Amino acid sequence: MNLIKFVDRLTGAWARSGSLVCIGLDPDRDKIPLRFHGEAHPFFEFNKMVVDATQDLVCAYKPQIAFYSAVGAERDLELTIEYIRERAPQVVIVLDAKRNDIGNTASAYAKEAFDRYGAHAVTVSPYMGDDSVLPFLTRPECGAAVLCRTSNPGARDFQDLSVGGLPLYRRVARHASERWNAHRNLMLVVGATYIEEMTGLRREHPQIPFLVPGIGHQGGDLEATLRAGLNSTGDGLLVSSSRAILYAGDGSPAAVRTAAAELNTLINQIRGIR
Amino acid sequence: MNLIKFVDRLTGAWARSGSLVCIGLDPDRDKIPLRFHGEAHPFFEFNKMVVDATQDLVCAYKPQIAFYSAVGAERDLELTIEYIRERAPQVVIVLDAKRNDIGNTASAYAKEAFDRYGAHAVTVSPYMGDDSVLPFLTRPECGAAVLCRTSNPGARDFQDLSVGGLPLYRRVARHASERWNAHRNLMLVVGATYIEEMTGLRREHPQIPFLVPGIGHQGGDLEATLRAGLNSTGDGLLVSSSRAILYAGDGSPAAVRTAAAELNTLINQIRGIR
Repeated sequence: MNLIKFVDRLTGAWARSGSLVCIGLDPDRDKIPLRFHGEAHPFFEFNKMVVDATQDLVCAYKPQIAFYSAVGAERDLELTIEYIRERAPQVVIVLDAKRNDIGNTASAYAKEAFDRYGAHAVTVSPYMGDDSVLPFLTRPECGAAVLCRTSNPGARDFQDLSVGGLPLYRRVARHASERWNAHRNLMLVVGATYIEEMTGLRREHPQIPFLVPGIGHQGGDLEATLRAGLNSTGDGLLVSSSRAILYAGDGSPAAVRTAAAELNTLINQIRGIR
Repeated sequence: MNLIKFVDRLTGAWARSGSLVCIGLDPDRDKIPLRFHGEAHPFFEFNKMVVDATQDLVCAYKPQIAFYSAVGAERDLELTIEYIRERAPQVVIVLDAKRNDIGNTASAYAKEAFDRYGAHAVTVSPYMGDDSVLPFLTRPECGAAVLCRTSNPGARDFQDLSVGGLPLYRRVARHASERWNAHRNLMLVVGATYIEEMTGLRREHPQIPFLVPGIGHQGGDLEATLRAGLNSTGDGLLVSSSRAILYAGDGSPAAVRTAAAELNTLINQIRGIR
């Protein structure tokens, strides 16, 4: 087993790739090219095409488990992560599962993400507190991205409620940073669609990596996001994009690569390198 | 497809069974009797034994998906739910999954719970707001139990924070009841370990069913729980118990049945029927 610490793995992935791009591997049978439909593991074959086309352009891949479990395609997910670990060992694999449970159930979910699937990190929800999150953060070689200020309209319903003068999501971030980050393997999910919120979070938490959904389809502004979220060393972000890359152009590997390269170039122009 | 409304299914299950007992189907390879270990689907065979021994004593079964997905036993879960639907069609099946995501991902999770597995209801987390919960409540024949005041120690970390003079979990309950219950298929997860909180929730929400973990292993007081949580017609609760029933006595069907019957009898003595 590879016991490199998660914090070092992530820092290494940023440095080696020169990229903040995280591709969400969210395969949808109605959208993947027809040429994959006849395969025994169509989602895996599709993901393999995406990985082959983009692995030198990204710091991370983020498979969303719902798309696999909705249709009984667990094997495709296992094969995908195995393939990424072999083909692109420098890349971070975040299982987007937003797990949320206590004690021995949380441990079972950690086992699912890290042992069964072999992900390096997993997304988790904070609502149930310490004993629901810590089981995902006890292994220094594995990380967790805690939902903080998400990118969807419903994020306003509870995350923005004022708790003693501070919005709940800021309380979550502070609590997480103080109590859950002993191994520096904590990340926060911070949506690209709420720039002001991201700015405040980065100011208070200069070192914590942000996993950032909401670019592209959801309408987040890339330049504003980077200004708000980059840390002092010009990284600290995993900028997630799924549909805009996966289903780019004519569905060819070249079209997928072009879409990933364009996002990467745009990000790197804005952060002033290359 | 059976399109009986969820609210009618649950009311019917209480009436026909005369029971508020919900057995958590959380199989653990280290705990299930050795005689199941050699089976092709050991978790399913174990669950089948439990269902055969208890199906006339319960209103619901609640498989916890983490115990299946941690070890790649999705097929056992499929077989279990199929079996319950056939053997005990009057019983409600709640998939404990605490799902939590937005838009099309939430829809994929709803598909997982209701279409792939055939559960009647699923547990969900409220942190991401309206658009993360509503996809689970759009089908009148399916229900969702929203995490409100959970039974674990970490429940205090965020759920109890005061939001405009009201604890967050009360805000969640109020919001859920006002915005998410158009089909009367909403339930709330309210732990048995916090009696005062349950009392307040029942007072404000006399009609909403509570899914109640925390009896038994976690130390919840049964009599106090029932006093706090029963509604005006003497039901309104799904009292969940897992380990105390699944692994009772010598692991025989008789021992499992006795444990379930004792809990059922105790509950019914307290609520004054039978």
